[in-house]
Amino acid sequence: MCELLGMSANVPTDICFSFSGLMQRGGSTGPHKDGWGIIFYHGKGYREFRDPEPSADSHIAKLVQKYPIKSDIVISHIRQANSGRVGMENTHPFCRELWGRYWSFAHNGQVKAVKKEALNTYLPVGTTDSEYAFCWLLDKIREKYPKPPRQPGGLFRLIYKCCVYLNQFGVFNMLLTDSRYLFAYCGKQLTWITRRAPFGEASLQDVDITVDFGRETTDKDVVTVIATQPLTINEEWHDMKQGELAMFKDGVEIRNYSPSS
Amino acid sequence: MCELLGMSANVPTDICFSFSGLMQRGGSTGPHKDGWGIIFYHGKGYREFRDPEPSADSHIAKLVQKYPIKSDIVISHIRQANSGRVGMENTHPFCRELWGRYWSFAHNGQVKAVKKEALNTYLPVGTTDSEYAFCWLLDKIREKYPKPPRQPGGLFRLIYKCCVYLNQFGVFNMLLTDSRYLFAYCGKQLTWITRRAPFGEASLQDVDITVDFGRETTDKDVVTVIATQPLTINEEWHDMKQGELAMFKDGVEIRNYSPSS
Repeated sequence: MCELLGMSANVPTDICFSFSGLMQRGGSTGPHKDGWGIIFYHGKGYREFRDPEPSADSHIAKLVQKYPIKSDIVISHIRQANSGRVGMENTHPFCRELWGRYWSFAHNGQVKAVKKEALNTYLPVGTTDSEYAFCWLLDKIREKYPKPPRQPGGLFRLIYKCCVYLNQFGVFNMLLTDSRYLFAYCGKQLTWITRRAPFGEASLQDVDITVDFGRETTDKDVVTVIATQPLTINEEWHDMKQGELAMFKDGVEIRNYSPSS
Repeated sequence: MCELLGMSANVPTDICFSFSGLMQRGGSTGPHKDGWGIIFYHGKGYREFRDPEPSADSHIAKLVQKYPIKSDIVISHIRQANSGRVGMENTHPFCRELWGRYWSFAHNGQVKAVKKEALNTYLPVGTTDSEYAFCWLLDKIREKYPKPPRQPGGLFRLIYKCCVYLNQFGVFNMLLTDSRYLFAYCGKQLTWITRRAPFGEASLQDVDITVDFGRETTDKDVVTVIATQPLTINEEWHDMKQGELAMFKDGVEIRNYSPSS
């Protein structure tokens, strides 16, 4: 298994605090030592950092932890390999272009049988089932929407259907973005928190760091952080239901569906 | 105008020395202060670093300069904006997937009229003529070769024809890779050097750094570095002809064509 981290914010926000917690799980407080990656969106563009080394020991992870990169949407992943060798081509997040937008994807779980599905426009470079599932998903979106839809409702429903289909192959927890929206699908385990005024203090679970968000934010800031497991010990995280898809924009959950909702 | 830097090597090699020279030209010894980017291939996978800040002042550029990332193929670019605003989505190198391989592209020059050409599978995310030209080029390759050709001869000729076509729109100097081969097209200015045993000392032009390659290499290492202008002062660089396309693999030029050759 792996661990996921995502962020959606209404003003460019750094993720140093959350990432400091996550990176400990990559070889120190957790077993996810087979590489890590993080992608920061800045409007339509992005920058990324990745390493096949354990994040707890990585020089590059230390830079990302210390250097406050302010971003609208972030997706990060630390890997415990179960499908595909340890190597740069198999580190998440994966990225492809559709509609002149960069889409990124990170996955936690196993969906090996997806490799029997046919692919069309997008092909995987590495050997993970995750990248294969991402290519399949983008093919489906491109097939139904050769051009971007004006309203995101149909896109949300299509992504939900695809996630349900992928989830039948095994455990499928996913973070996906098209640089505008952040989608989070919980096949088994995913939790999130939205921070807004009045901001308080938060303490990480994996390392002795506390931050007072009140000192780092304005009253208008809204930031949602999504993770496999809660990253802090003194805040209330919202556990997603199994089979639930949530869609975030500008820090806020704007759409949600699960079989029981 | 911008500056390009490329590397092809037969063993994973770091580019700290050459990059230390190049980054000075991004706001210190040169005017290319509108962002920079570098992509390192590790087999089929890659990692990249990019910043819309001047490379001479960039924290991330300092990491890349000091932390020896060993790679088979490198493409780097420092930007002086002339088409497209300064922003992350307009920093080179650009990257897309074709045939399950990551292709990367960096361009120096101006080919604005390329934006009148039709595009098909690949669309630009930013607003540069460079990214547009890359999308057009990949469309042409995909159109002729829906699957990767067994031998690279036809691909070389197709890329040559496309470069000649793009060069009619203005200045077109390009570095392109599919993770196996590195292509360098000289529309106006590009120079390269192949280093192999016996290795000697080299001193950078833009900053007071000298390296003794004999201490850092083995007798079997072969490394080619390609740049807009020579990076060192005490080595002989090979200036490419205008209209020349060169193809490198494992540090060696394996194919070359120019109108007068």
